[in-house]
Amino acid sequence: MSQIASKPTWLISQANLRNHLHRRAKTLSSLSRRLRHIYHPKYTHANRDTSSVQPKDVLNKGKSAAPLTKEELGRATWTFLHTLAAQYPEHPTRQQKKDVKELMAILSRMYPCQECADHFKEVIKVNPVQAGSHAEFSQWMCHAHNVVNRSLGKLVFPCERVDARWGKLECEQRECDLQGTTNFD
Amino acid sequence: MSQIASKPTWLISQANLRNHLHRRAKTLSSLSRRLRHIYHPKYTHANRDTSSVQPKDVLNKGKSAAPLTKEELGRATWTFLHTLAAQYPEHPTRQQKKDVKELMAILSRMYPCQECADHFKEVIKVNPVQAGSHAEFSQWMCHAHNVVNRSLGKLVFPCERVDARWGKLECEQRECDLQGTTNFD
Repeated sequence: MSQIASKPTWLISQANLRNHLHRRAKTLSSLSRRLRHIYHPKYTHANRDTSSVQPKDVLNKGKSAAPLTKEELGRATWTFLHTLAAQYPEHPTRQQKKDVKELMAILSRMYPCQECADHFKEVIKVNPVQAGSHAEFSQWMCHAHNVVNRSLGKLVFPCERVDARWGKLECEQRECDLQGTTNFD
Repeated sequence: MSQIASKPTWLISQANLRNHLHRRAKTLSSLSRRLRHIYHPKYTHANRDTSSVQPKDVLNKGKSAAPLTKEELGRATWTFLHTLAAQYPEHPTRQQKKDVKELMAILSRMYPCQECADHFKEVIKVNPVQAGSHAEFSQWMCHAHNVVNRSLGKLVFPCERVDARWGKLECEQRECDLQGTTNFD
């Protein structure tokens, strides 16, 4: 820590930014490899009106994809979780509150990277899930993500801006929104 | 369906491939916009040894990110789910079997796109979760994804190749793997 603290702030930021951009470039390269695999011309298209998969609809042989990294898995999962928080109703039902708490508990046991799951278990033990409202849950999610990011030496996010970063899903007339309750018992 | 069937197969494949590549290019463009937002130079780095977020660690002002599309959310969530299936133990414990079934039930209520969640509820009603072993769960996940993809007119995946497409997480000496049970009661 003291070694880093002795450097000028702008130098740390530049170096870290370079590292992050390098990692991101690796991810894009990996994504490109996956796309070549998935969009191989031998793939054909499933017909909307077809109720079963015909032999011509699938690829019969091909190469393996590169294994997913922990970082790629983390990015995908946080994308899902922050969107869940963004769409979480202002006035959730009891079932919705129960569901998101249970979801976090399941992730702390079953997130498909054991050491990450174990760490997340500690995070939610120290920071119990807050899901009484949209604001409460999205702030809790942002805070939990920052706790994880800090432990990994990664960027933290200013939680007062979480609604701007993770807005409602792009969906006409808000028809995708999860509905909450109008009963406040 | 009959209109499509009257076209030569290679022509259908080429057209569909073009559509898919176009959609994928849009996604990459959207990703690029997000990266510009996230990796803005004003972001600084959280120190690994710092237990609280200091003012210099966060961005105090900035732009909003573009809203996530249903397709981006879907891709992120399937990445998480297929990796979960890939890491699912050969001999899961009772708790693990219960957890993944409950996770799918929660997704059918809380997936942050209501119409998608409603559709997924139908999918798991017709195709109850099979989670007795790694093979069973990864095949079930692949099948469930294909049911969703077919309904959207998207590509389907040959499930006999699911282990090659969604392999174990990239992790040294398999230390990330979820552990199952050795008791077969």
